[in-house]
Amino acid sequence: MKKVYAGIDLGGSYIKAGLLTAGGKRVSSFKILSEAGSGPKTVAKNLLLAAEKLVFLAGKNKTKLCGFGVGSPGTIRYPDGIVTGSSPNIPGWVGTNIGGLFGSRGLEVKVDNDANCMALGEYLFGAGRGTKSGFYLTIGTGIGCAFINNGRLMRGSNYAAGEFGHIVLKYNGKRCKCGRRGCVEAYTAVPALIHSTKNILKKYDKSPLKKNLNDLAPMTIFEAFKKGDKAATEAISLNAKMLGTAIGSVVNLLNPEIVVIGGGLAQAGKKYIDKIRKIIFEFAFDSAAENLRIISAQLGNNAGWIGAACMNFDKNSG
Amino acid sequence: MKKVYAGIDLGGSYIKAGLLTAGGKRVSSFKILSEAGSGPKTVAKNLLLAAEKLVFLAGKNKTKLCGFGVGSPGTIRYPDGIVTGSSPNIPGWVGTNIGGLFGSRGLEVKVDNDANCMALGEYLFGAGRGTKSGFYLTIGTGIGCAFINNGRLMRGSNYAAGEFGHIVLKYNGKRCKCGRRGCVEAYTAVPALIHSTKNILKKYDKSPLKKNLNDLAPMTIFEAFKKGDKAATEAISLNAKMLGTAIGSVVNLLNPEIVVIGGGLAQAGKKYIDKIRKIIFEFAFDSAAENLRIISAQLGNNAGWIGAACMNFDKNSG
Repeated sequence: MKKVYAGIDLGGSYIKAGLLTAGGKRVSSFKILSEAGSGPKTVAKNLLLAAEKLVFLAGKNKTKLCGFGVGSPGTIRYPDGIVTGSSPNIPGWVGTNIGGLFGSRGLEVKVDNDANCMALGEYLFGAGRGTKSGFYLTIGTGIGCAFINNGRLMRGSNYAAGEFGHIVLKYNGKRCKCGRRGCVEAYTAVPALIHSTKNILKKYDKSPLKKNLNDLAPMTIFEAFKKGDKAATEAISLNAKMLGTAIGSVVNLLNPEIVVIGGGLAQAGKKYIDKIRKIIFEFAFDSAAENLRIISAQLGNNAGWIGAACMNFDKNSG
Repeated sequence: MKKVYAGIDLGGSYIKAGLLTAGGKRVSSFKILSEAGSGPKTVAKNLLLAAEKLVFLAGKNKTKLCGFGVGSPGTIRYPDGIVTGSSPNIPGWVGTNIGGLFGSRGLEVKVDNDANCMALGEYLFGAGRGTKSGFYLTIGTGIGCAFINNGRLMRGSNYAAGEFGHIVLKYNGKRCKCGRRGCVEAYTAVPALIHSTKNILKKYDKSPLKKNLNDLAPMTIFEAFKKGDKAATEAISLNAKMLGTAIGSVVNLLNPEIVVIGGGLAQAGKKYIDKIRKIIFEFAFDSAAENLRIISAQLGNNAGWIGAACMNFDKNSG
């Protein structure tokens, strides 16, 4: 009987889940609503629904289910899955015992932070294949990050590593949602891009972006950028410059082999990644950047559940 | 016969060296001039002089010398000791093959970056005893840094990790000696402290620090700070705020168990470390700072050679 591993990626909107072989083949996948707005009990119920569906699918596919992995927002005690720190997209989630939840149904599970799972997925079956160390970023409304060193996730002494969004980019700068001043996230995540595009548009009377100013979507900005719109180009270039400086700083500090950029912002496309790459190489020391590669994430929305499933592979179970 | 390990710490002014037991007992130590201004051949000659003296001392002490370790400025390929990247304090040092140099005398050696050696020394026999992960800083004219994760130095994919001095603190800020803008070092190392003290003194006509303005030494500023001088206090407080913000950023990124602060600036004393600690805890997330300790380095000028010697302990030889 073929072995499969179950992965679940819990997000503020959806729970994505699937079955994976040890070779990285996706046997089955689906998504259901997480209903985060209905409170943590509903989210927990939906997590277990996803788990039951995975058990059912494993049976239907005549495969042997060899373990569950869950990626969750927040600071997550690995591998037992106590949510110990803030997770703004799922109100009331802190304090949840995800491992206990699965245990109550007789299911064994390993739980980690969602950004760690995404990085593990990309590392094993996506952009990071064949590397030993990498800095993995997911940039959307917020910024997720994980660092793989010598083939191992660096979770930090309290499982709280990875807040790249809240390292300082501009001392005494703009107030961030988190309350600090000058954080990377305040300047480079999607809300900051929308804000700066609106500001820049004040100079450009004829930009088609002005038509829908109150409802400016990131994809609209990306499309305009791809068509060469001046305002969009200026906004994206500024974003790339600030993000590239922050990533270049991390390269100077940690000297990874690769930087992998994923999440909503990566949809701005190759020209955007090229701009970031240029700035990273300007800011990074020659010795740190000598063999550095800057690449787009490859697994898209599947990275999270794929990485979660991989936690049960023997070599990643430590 | 008692086993000893030889450590050599190469600096811009001095070569410090000594013999260490596996239990961390210092059997013997000395320093000689490195004569960096006389070129790399002279420095190499002095390194070998120190090595010969260590061999002699090991014999004199009736001990068995079990290996040499060298800490050198610059990017150092570990363990063979090719100097692959910039080392401004020893002109012409890039390209030197330190391992080959020792090999030519029949001596086996392990070579690493000097900040890595200091961190290893503090980790095993100083401020880091009993911990698993730590962020180690040495702040003087420049800034040295190393990160220990799960008991292992993180050297980076090209041995170029550790440029905490050149992560951005203020986007588009002050020009740094390295050519970048807004680096931590440009705002927080000793030259920046002297510069900002001079600026601040413009407001304080009566400060005794004004007497020697052209020759303002860091120790003079520290003494004035300890006596409550207002200008010195303002300069040190600003330094602590900027440095604390940068360290707090790294805590958010890497979530270490301890931050160890050493080097010339640490001589500003406990009140200075207290100020830095306060800012770090303000900037770090609760989850990342929960069990964090901020402590002064304990081995002073000996950390480098002690750590270099430790590279030959079996458990640190990987």
